[in-house]
Amino acid sequence: MTERVVIIGADATGMAAASQARRMKSAAELEIVVFERGHFTSYSACGIPYWVGGDVDSRDDLIARTPAEHRARDIDLRLRTEVVELDVPGRRVLVRELDGGGETWWGYDKLVLATGATPIRPPMPGIDAAGVHGVQTLDDGQALIDTLDTLDAKAERSAVVVGAGYIGVEIAEALINRGYRVTMLTRSSQPMSTLDPDMGELIRKAMEGMGIRVVTDAEVTAVHTGDDGRARSVATSDAEYPADVVVLGIGVRPATDLAAAAGLPLGPHGGLVTDLAMRVRGHENIWAGGDCVEVLDLVSGSLRHIPLGTHANKHGQIIGSGVGGDYATFPGVVGTAVSKVCDLEVARTGLLEKDAREAGLQYVTVTIESTSRSGYYPGAALMTVKMLAERRTGRVLGVQIVGREGAGKRIDIAAVALTARMTADQMIALDLGYAPPFSPVWDPVLVAARKAAMAVRKDQFVR
Amino acid sequence: MTERVVIIGADATGMAAASQARRMKSAAELEIVVFERGHFTSYSACGIPYWVGGDVDSRDDLIARTPAEHRARDIDLRLRTEVVELDVPGRRVLVRELDGGGETWWGYDKLVLATGATPIRPPMPGIDAAGVHGVQTLDDGQALIDTLDTLDAKAERSAVVVGAGYIGVEIAEALINRGYRVTMLTRSSQPMSTLDPDMGELIRKAMEGMGIRVVTDAEVTAVHTGDDGRARSVATSDAEYPADVVVLGIGVRPATDLAAAAGLPLGPHGGLVTDLAMRVRGHENIWAGGDCVEVLDLVSGSLRHIPLGTHANKHGQIIGSGVGGDYATFPGVVGTAVSKVCDLEVARTGLLEKDAREAGLQYVTVTIESTSRSGYYPGAALMTVKMLAERRTGRVLGVQIVGREGAGKRIDIAAVALTARMTADQMIALDLGYAPPFSPVWDPVLVAARKAAMAVRKDQFVR
Repeated sequence: MTERVVIIGADATGMAAASQARRMKSAAELEIVVFERGHFTSYSACGIPYWVGGDVDSRDDLIARTPAEHRARDIDLRLRTEVVELDVPGRRVLVRELDGGGETWWGYDKLVLATGATPIRPPMPGIDAAGVHGVQTLDDGQALIDTLDTLDAKAERSAVVVGAGYIGVEIAEALINRGYRVTMLTRSSQPMSTLDPDMGELIRKAMEGMGIRVVTDAEVTAVHTGDDGRARSVATSDAEYPADVVVLGIGVRPATDLAAAAGLPLGPHGGLVTDLAMRVRGHENIWAGGDCVEVLDLVSGSLRHIPLGTHANKHGQIIGSGVGGDYATFPGVVGTAVSKVCDLEVARTGLLEKDAREAGLQYVTVTIESTSRSGYYPGAALMTVKMLAERRTGRVLGVQIVGREGAGKRIDIAAVALTARMTADQMIALDLGYAPPFSPVWDPVLVAARKAAMAVRKDQFVR
Repeated sequence: MTERVVIIGADATGMAAASQARRMKSAAELEIVVFERGHFTSYSACGIPYWVGGDVDSRDDLIARTPAEHRARDIDLRLRTEVVELDVPGRRVLVRELDGGGETWWGYDKLVLATGATPIRPPMPGIDAAGVHGVQTLDDGQALIDTLDTLDAKAERSAVVVGAGYIGVEIAEALINRGYRVTMLTRSSQPMSTLDPDMGELIRKAMEGMGIRVVTDAEVTAVHTGDDGRARSVATSDAEYPADVVVLGIGVRPATDLAAAAGLPLGPHGGLVTDLAMRVRGHENIWAGGDCVEVLDLVSGSLRHIPLGTHANKHGQIIGSGVGGDYATFPGVVGTAVSKVCDLEVARTGLLEKDAREAGLQYVTVTIESTSRSGYYPGAALMTVKMLAERRTGRVLGVQIVGREGAGKRIDIAAVALTARMTADQMIALDLGYAPPFSPVWDPVLVAARKAAMAVRKDQFVR
């Protein structure tokens, strides 16, 4: 008998799951139906800032696989269809055709929730005005680019970016490259609140050096509009900033309204809670993954919400294996991320100081400066590495890196070491690639480990 | 009472040991005497090819710390002095002043052997002719550059590089950049025998693309000289190659004649054998490190000789701690190395196929191609990753990477994973830094791990 899997959402997780399940089961064994609210499939949302900034030529470049390609593999993909209700005991979903056509119940044997995340839009006057954009989906990106295209003719044009996470910072850079006067507003004490404030300070300097105005500790209160109903400025409790266009990069929350209404279990951040095989806890035949779930943080032992394409893809792969009858698990994350701001590379893995405190961990911190290559080799550039190590045990809890070319992906050294629960002392001994064009004799990450190991020892002695 | 440590050799290991010991003990507690045969201290031998090629301006750039700087820290550093005899029971060394001044016995309480390695010079006619150079020491590098400077006036000038390891390949590139017609001769079936032949083939193509003539399976039989006694050509059993200058990059052997004569224990590769704290086995008060020792290969469990500045520095640090009364160990290596050939980055860690066979390990191999960045991001470049994983257990045994910018240091991911004895399956789950300018959604190393895990499973099934 043919089983049916219904997949809700056709981006990274949903389509990776569909593809993997199809690799394992023929159309005679498994019918795969995918419902997607938007117009696109399998695209790189992470690439949107680069498309806006012009580094990526066209929207199509961001699409890894088109609907036609999926359909050619016996995947019944339905765009512009929204699942509006989930009936878990009845094993069925209510599907609405967004471009007219009414609603229909679809039964399922297996269900995959890949509904992604929703950009946070703070409820304030003017938030829905024309010229105010999110950058979460390709549709969002297209709308922003359409707005920018109409504004390009203006000699003096201003933009406000609200929020200073990865997306906010990347968009700010994209907009300055397009000739806007850019103001970035953030509630945090420094941009890039995915770093500790002392490291975020380095980002602020780089952004200001590029001509971006960075306003921290800013509480946005309203978007003011002109007579045409379009955004004109953004107000905070202290001031007002001109804005022909406003981009919201405040962050996202898991899109789990549907799941919540159906009584599925949500975690502390509003994401679905799954087991290690990405099955929704307590439900043998429902899987969930990507931006709508919470993941286990292997360093702190707690659940986190980390919307990131690389996890979404892995989840999809694992879910597809499970749906297809095979076995695979997602053990958890260590919280690695890397980004580029101007010519700075910014990376982190593990816990920030505040994360560690929240987890009940006590730690020492060290910060070092070193170079990406041997000091005498052309192109050697400074980088700053901060490391947190646990008191007593010396276990490395987190690493943050800010530097120029060659700095960012060094975070992977720490990411693997954190996964293996290495101590700073163990890291010192790591046999990393060395040659003058690639690293000083002591890789900067090892310099930090050496100093962290010393700080741990000193701490033993003092207290 | 003041103790005396005698250190033989003033490059990375010797001077790192001296510095670290001095950090821990005052001059009143510990007298530190260093004997060095050459003219220089603490220099980067790995940087010599870049100095020859002009990427590094001057010899002084390669010197991390001058004799004067060391002496200012109460280190009694004596250049141009050679230790010619070691009397272990008598705890003394016989020291010859090379620029005249006779021989003197020096007693020691502690001894550090940091005598480095000696370039292999195959015994053949003409090997000692003018114009034949090694590139092991700064003195060697200076001599080569002096020769090149005199040849620069010649319109047509040819060079032969014998050996195709890292140094040979780097020097070949340096010489072609200086306008030489370069032939590289190697006994191996491919250049870069630190890689498997299938990966070495990629290096050969890159070198040939640069105009370097690569002759493999070549047995060098003689250097022919002109009437002036200078090198003119290099003969193999099959042919003869014009050579105004000949550079030997055949490799090095541990410089352990002194230690051997004193009855200290040598390993299978002729290097000193130490315990984990870098003390020569069986000798409480004698340490050895750097290019003159053998190190434990953590993957195969056997001893290897790996002359590399980064290990030498670590050894020095550990020895200095031991000499100073503290505790530190060097657990071993996984065999990581990285290099640059033209615009190719070349890296390896762990075992080659032949190493694995020699260690009695059975394995599967996979080779994948992927890109350094998201495919749509500017500058995304192809890279090839080869992975060996053990049959049955799936433990990753080795990784080799050849690619362009951003490829080389990715080897560190595998180096840490090998240290943690991860399986290919465990590697798939690694939380590595992802953003379009830095990586595809699946990092190339993870793509290889995924394929390797599949190969391991397939192998279980078949046999």
